[in-house]
Amino acid sequence: MNRSIRAALGEEPADLALLDASVFNPFLGQWEQTDLGIHAGRVLGPGPYRARREIDLAGARVVPGLIDAHVHVESSLLSPFEYARLAAAHGVTTAIADPHEIANVLGAPGIEYMLACRPHLPIDLLLMLPSCVPATPLDRGGAVLDADALLAFAGREGVLGLGEVMNVPGLLARDPDLVAKLAGFDLVDGHAPGLQGPSLNAYVLSGIQSDHESTSPEEGRDRIARGMWLFLREGSTERNLRSLLPVVDPATAPRTAFCTDDRHADLLARAGSIDDCIRLAVEAGLEPEIALRMATLSAAERFGLLDRGALAPGRRADLCVLSPGTEFRVARTFSAGVEVIDRGPARAPVPAPARPMRCRVPAEADLALTLEGTARVIELVPGQIRTRAVDLPLLNAAMPDPARDLLVGAVCDAYRATGTGVGLVRGFGLRVGAIAGSVAHDAHQLVAVGAQPAAIVAALEAVVRSGGGLAAVGAGRTTVLPLPAAGLMSDRPYDEVVAGLDELHAHAAALGACAQAFMHLSFLALTVIPERRLTERGVFDTAAWADVPLVY
Amino acid sequence: MNRSIRAALGEEPADLALLDASVFNPFLGQWEQTDLGIHAGRVLGPGPYRARREIDLAGARVVPGLIDAHVHVESSLLSPFEYARLAAAHGVTTAIADPHEIANVLGAPGIEYMLACRPHLPIDLLLMLPSCVPATPLDRGGAVLDADALLAFAGREGVLGLGEVMNVPGLLARDPDLVAKLAGFDLVDGHAPGLQGPSLNAYVLSGIQSDHESTSPEEGRDRIARGMWLFLREGSTERNLRSLLPVVDPATAPRTAFCTDDRHADLLARAGSIDDCIRLAVEAGLEPEIALRMATLSAAERFGLLDRGALAPGRRADLCVLSPGTEFRVARTFSAGVEVIDRGPARAPVPAPARPMRCRVPAEADLALTLEGTARVIELVPGQIRTRAVDLPLLNAAMPDPARDLLVGAVCDAYRATGTGVGLVRGFGLRVGAIAGSVAHDAHQLVAVGAQPAAIVAALEAVVRSGGGLAAVGAGRTTVLPLPAAGLMSDRPYDEVVAGLDELHAHAAALGACAQAFMHLSFLALTVIPERRLTERGVFDTAAWADVPLVY
Repeated sequence: MNRSIRAALGEEPADLALLDASVFNPFLGQWEQTDLGIHAGRVLGPGPYRARREIDLAGARVVPGLIDAHVHVESSLLSPFEYARLAAAHGVTTAIADPHEIANVLGAPGIEYMLACRPHLPIDLLLMLPSCVPATPLDRGGAVLDADALLAFAGREGVLGLGEVMNVPGLLARDPDLVAKLAGFDLVDGHAPGLQGPSLNAYVLSGIQSDHESTSPEEGRDRIARGMWLFLREGSTERNLRSLLPVVDPATAPRTAFCTDDRHADLLARAGSIDDCIRLAVEAGLEPEIALRMATLSAAERFGLLDRGALAPGRRADLCVLSPGTEFRVARTFSAGVEVIDRGPARAPVPAPARPMRCRVPAEADLALTLEGTARVIELVPGQIRTRAVDLPLLNAAMPDPARDLLVGAVCDAYRATGTGVGLVRGFGLRVGAIAGSVAHDAHQLVAVGAQPAAIVAALEAVVRSGGGLAAVGAGRTTVLPLPAAGLMSDRPYDEVVAGLDELHAHAAALGACAQAFMHLSFLALTVIPERRLTERGVFDTAAWADVPLVY
Repeated sequence: MNRSIRAALGEEPADLALLDASVFNPFLGQWEQTDLGIHAGRVLGPGPYRARREIDLAGARVVPGLIDAHVHVESSLLSPFEYARLAAAHGVTTAIADPHEIANVLGAPGIEYMLACRPHLPIDLLLMLPSCVPATPLDRGGAVLDADALLAFAGREGVLGLGEVMNVPGLLARDPDLVAKLAGFDLVDGHAPGLQGPSLNAYVLSGIQSDHESTSPEEGRDRIARGMWLFLREGSTERNLRSLLPVVDPATAPRTAFCTDDRHADLLARAGSIDDCIRLAVEAGLEPEIALRMATLSAAERFGLLDRGALAPGRRADLCVLSPGTEFRVARTFSAGVEVIDRGPARAPVPAPARPMRCRVPAEADLALTLEGTARVIELVPGQIRTRAVDLPLLNAAMPDPARDLLVGAVCDAYRATGTGVGLVRGFGLRVGAIAGSVAHDAHQLVAVGAQPAAIVAALEAVVRSGGGLAAVGAGRTTVLPLPAAGLMSDRPYDEVVAGLDELHAHAAALGACAQAFMHLSFLALTVIPERRLTERGVFDTAAWADVPLVY
């Protein structure tokens, strides 16, 4: 500290000086033409500083490092190392991550794995602990994390608070375990799609401080008005940024931030991360200075991170140098005063944990159905997570029946080998073959959908053989993207994962699959979203909150 | 909590509902026509709430309770009880107080007194601990508060952090005791008039987070740009609000707040407190919604007070109902859901501590000077704290010489009876008599200025007899405002103190005194402000940072 003070006073040279920069100042909402001194990973401040290393930026724009206010690293399908490599290249220097997926598979060791990765990452990954594992009391995934399990992580380096509280009924009913979780953390993120009026008041009163599930300006405004921070989300499937923009103005900018929540590797690599959110917002008409404040200072303030979010004295020298021109394109990223140089993929310094795989893949005969009566079909809604409940009278009907787009879905218990739930699904469009995966929110059982029982079995077996992954089977081929890390993440460089995703999508499309078939597949078992789902127990009715027979 | 949740859900009646209110929402910067539910001292939220007590506001404006970001209660000359009575009447529900004056007189017991008063006040008084007691190593007041003494208060209820760090050279030189003080608190307020460039960078880097000593927009902007919170101060003598307004805009509003710092009882009673700041700002052209945000949410955020600053679910129901019309006039104040009813002055529930008074009042002969040589005269600057150093050749001159406005000043050691420092002062204007006081920043020795030695002695004796106070002597009369509480504060109702101040001012004016003579008197010994001062040791040169002879 003494040396930093002396460096700030100009009494001894700084570590680094950025010369002739146009620096964005989020406190003022303005750009300042200045030099910037940096020492011991921290900003000294504006002004002419002598330094051991000087970089002449020739007037280039410099902004504070970007902050992703809410992200599930696992959703990228990348290892934390490859995720961070991509995030850094796109200017993200701080990611607030909720390891909800890996915790559902592995429990506390999954969180430990994320924490063990932290020191090896080029960015600062900070955790909000998964508050709802399992998502509902009915779900049986790989772990149950009660209050004691989460409180054991309180105060650990890299742990910020409690992640998205999805169990709204439990919270409002003062579920003791959930109450104990909230009591243990100052920072608590929310997740309350559609909640309003007195229920929203009660949700906020309970201590929930943010939401990222708003989809309309009215919903967003309601949340800001009640003191919640609003995260504008733009993920691979939930794209809410544009529709929420009307709520952002100079008054609300300090209470809003961007988040990506769930972005696959392909979107991250091709469009970007928070930099993409900034571009989208500015293209849609938001003042660039407001978008930049949201992506930096506002997000930092939401999480009480007073050590970043601006290039001011004493704060982390997390920053992006932008490309020439007016568009927001990150050319160089510095984290804690050190430039992040992408030296390509390296051997992971922390071994990834495998996922438990105690399952019995169903036989072909289990998946070849002959149905009589009214079948409870699950119908996809294109581009949305929610499904539609369709009741279909059948007369001695053999399933799957791809001619009518009535495919057989299967969710296979991968933790306890209790068996496989089988249902009928419409909307995937496969004419032949099957797709399967070990990414199945939130319990992450194995899930498959197919036009032929043999293909479903083959796809599930391919996933099991890989220790988890995504697979497409049909037309004489098997395409697999192995996800050996907890059955959720690849151990390969991101470009290989992007290529693998491309192959999978191409193969699925060739089988007749709809767009984003693997994303829809991953949500088929998600019991917290209406209207009808498939679990390892069979068909689940979200309105009745009960397992129901496939045929009645 | 369970009952509050049920009340928020509307499942049982709330304690209080404000019906048909126009509520200011600082998150949106907008007014909302709504009802407001309140339960257990907290806001439930907007919406129709049934309640045990309902108040129909018939469309009246409601704003969150005002927050004074920095105030010395002692400067009001009122007891904390009478100060709080006035503050509440003017809509202030939270005052961030630095008990710097009483701590200089009494040390830690002075801080204990303020903490003991807290539970009995109608507003929330939160302390920033005095960081610099004494103000400089040369000063010898009633106490020395080192790091250990301050850290003993860390974590106490009502203690927020460390108050204005005035010892800038000590900080930049990493004075170990000051460094230890900073290390003990997360919140640290600053005090750095005129500091700029690399020194300002180093000051902020050291951990200082706010400043209230800026006087120009450039200075203010410099501080905001570096991540400091800027408090716009409007005290009895330092009136900086208007000149700082150009720095306030929608982008900077979240980083600015209002403070009164030092307001005498008369200004508090006649003009007001933070409500007066809001009116002044709006009259000067600031958008009312921005002024209101500064006075509520911004101030709360600066101090990490996430439980107030807005009328949102779960936050303290601190609020003001405004008078009809468009002007900002507080009609009713609620603190934690309870209306503050002014029932007049009550017997103080906590006995005020007396000040130590170990002094030897000088004899007339000590104050009748005959000077030969060049005298180091201290000249007042009207309306400012700073003084001018004037060197005046004298030839066998008898002093005081009121005809030339050369009065004798005296600072009498009131802690150790080491004696009295004597000097020459110009600008007070007294033609006869003298004025004296026990308020003398920062050490609070006894201070007097007079046109006749006998009157000076009489004025000092009047102060001593009262156990501290302000006195005017001359034209056959003695007027005294006793300040028995630590020699700084009255024990009388505020209207009596205002009347007493009026009498004192009238008496002093009749003696020929300049405007604000007692305020100037209270700063005569303030060694941290240029150019020349008087201490119990004699004349002090602030540039030389040394005691100097009166005549050379």
